[in-house]
Amino acid sequence: MARLAGVSEATVSRVLNGVGPIKEQTRARVMEAAKALNYVPSALAQGFARKRSGNLGVILPLLPKVNLFSTHYFSELLSGIGMTASRYGYDLLLLFREPDEPREYERMFQAQKIDACLILGAQDVEPERHALAELAANGRQFCLVSQRFEGTGYNAVDADHREGVRAAVHHLLDRGFSRIWFLNGPSSYSNSADRLQGYCEALHERGVPFDPERVLLGNYSRTSGYRLSEEIEGLVRSGAADAIVAGSDRMAIGVLQGLKEKGLLAGIDYGLVGCDDSEGAKLTDPMLTSIAVPFYEMGSQAANQILSPLAQGETSSSFQLKLPVELIVRGSSAR
Amino acid sequence: MARLAGVSEATVSRVLNGVGPIKEQTRARVMEAAKALNYVPSALAQGFARKRSGNLGVILPLLPKVNLFSTHYFSELLSGIGMTASRYGYDLLLLFREPDEPREYERMFQAQKIDACLILGAQDVEPERHALAELAANGRQFCLVSQRFEGTGYNAVDADHREGVRAAVHHLLDRGFSRIWFLNGPSSYSNSADRLQGYCEALHERGVPFDPERVLLGNYSRTSGYRLSEEIEGLVRSGAADAIVAGSDRMAIGVLQGLKEKGLLAGIDYGLVGCDDSEGAKLTDPMLTSIAVPFYEMGSQAANQILSPLAQGETSSSFQLKLPVELIVRGSSAR
Repeated sequence: MARLAGVSEATVSRVLNGVGPIKEQTRARVMEAAKALNYVPSALAQGFARKRSGNLGVILPLLPKVNLFSTHYFSELLSGIGMTASRYGYDLLLLFREPDEPREYERMFQAQKIDACLILGAQDVEPERHALAELAANGRQFCLVSQRFEGTGYNAVDADHREGVRAAVHHLLDRGFSRIWFLNGPSSYSNSADRLQGYCEALHERGVPFDPERVLLGNYSRTSGYRLSEEIEGLVRSGAADAIVAGSDRMAIGVLQGLKEKGLLAGIDYGLVGCDDSEGAKLTDPMLTSIAVPFYEMGSQAANQILSPLAQGETSSSFQLKLPVELIVRGSSAR
Repeated sequence: MARLAGVSEATVSRVLNGVGPIKEQTRARVMEAAKALNYVPSALAQGFARKRSGNLGVILPLLPKVNLFSTHYFSELLSGIGMTASRYGYDLLLLFREPDEPREYERMFQAQKIDACLILGAQDVEPERHALAELAANGRQFCLVSQRFEGTGYNAVDADHREGVRAAVHHLLDRGFSRIWFLNGPSSYSNSADRLQGYCEALHERGVPFDPERVLLGNYSRTSGYRLSEEIEGLVRSGAADAIVAGSDRMAIGVLQGLKEKGLLAGIDYGLVGCDDSEGAKLTDPMLTSIAVPFYEMGSQAANQILSPLAQGETSSSFQLKLPVELIVRGSSAR
């Protein structure tokens, strides 16, 4: 290219990397030669000069074997993130976090593999807090999706899970259910704490005393709901429970299937509400009343908030977004 | 670092990039200084020196709004790819292919964003053939997953879709169904052609003449199956059809739900078999007989075949793998 343009290799490099003062005429000659040679600038060379990779990191938990239901959430988030990133000309670099390995997020920035990152499926546990504090201390651009860390002020995009369960409990009380149990997921997810708060709040608003014994614990999987259906059968048959709100559709579907095998039907023998409004909610018989969460929109907004300032070379100001959810009433909460 | 090690910047660079002859003593001094300074080599700088990015590209179609069912296939494949790539120390770079944009796969290699790539959801259409031919001409490492291109010899990992539908038709004939229709997806996917071949083969083996009128066309979505249920109702009520094999669970579930609304039950009024054995197959009532496809394993093997030679600095020989499938019999094909 230097020969074709009639300049030195060093000049070609300065033009292509946009560094140093260059006469316009020289620049034009080099660009013309580049065009004639069908030259594609190497992202590595470009990134090296600009200290940018053009990649948005997406940190995901590495699950030994992902099943469909655990992926409604991730696939919708990823779709929203991917669509928005591609609008900004960014590619997604997926970084799988192994359950027991140290979380070396900062390393990915130091190694210039990513310019910013979104963190999915985080939990409020010590190694995670440590890794995030390191990012914050180094001024890295990152955003938590669907998880908050109390008292940190980190960028986050979440949904209003509290309000969702609050609406679900009001709905069940309105339908005449009175002994409503709550099947929650692990407390290390902020979603779980938010939903529990919504459950308590609604009961309080309707003058129903909160009984901590009415809170069951699953792990968000269908299997965990299915296992608990044995205990729930006893509760329903003895009259101790007449409705269940589950913190995920998967757990709700496990309960629905388990109780059906034991002769108890959702929407007839008891009321049932799930969370997420995944496609599965429309496949069960009866269909599942559920809380629709805008995962796609959450992913899209998180990517947009992080990439928009980067694209304009600005520093982003901190943000905490909470998107609204919606109760979708179907057959499982009929009375 | 140069100061701490007492050597020149150029020497530091040569040691860290592993280029040029260096005295062992000098090398040790630089490495010690690097350790003391907590130095992390920049992937860009390293890649620049080695002409490697450490990224495995995964090319995916960008769908305007992905629904859960279309993601069983992708999420399982991606999980298998991700798990294997992380074993080789590779990160996944997701490259979304917009439906109507040119497919610039070669550019991603030229720009050194990726060292190799896997292509998911490809279709045998002209722009795709052109982009792949360009990769092949330049000796790029790539592999098609779940799609073949006749007469090319490209690396591919696929499942035995032909055998799956063949087994499904034999199963329905064994159960006493005799007017079996086939609901296929678009013919630009090689899967569709393979499944149709399996359908014809099984009929031929049992002496049932193939009637092209008994092949319906959907687009693999639940909605397309649901829409066709109107036509299928007439076929079942008139006795023209007594069983359906659908090329995806999604289409089968659409048919099942549509016919249920019209008073026709799978496993009682007609026989129904899907393909994929997604989680949804276990949620319908009755549960869906389906062909289990090892998507996770396919992703894992594709990544392994591509990355193993790269990691060892060898040239890979061409491969075409076809993984076995399995018919899972459930209530929808009862008689």
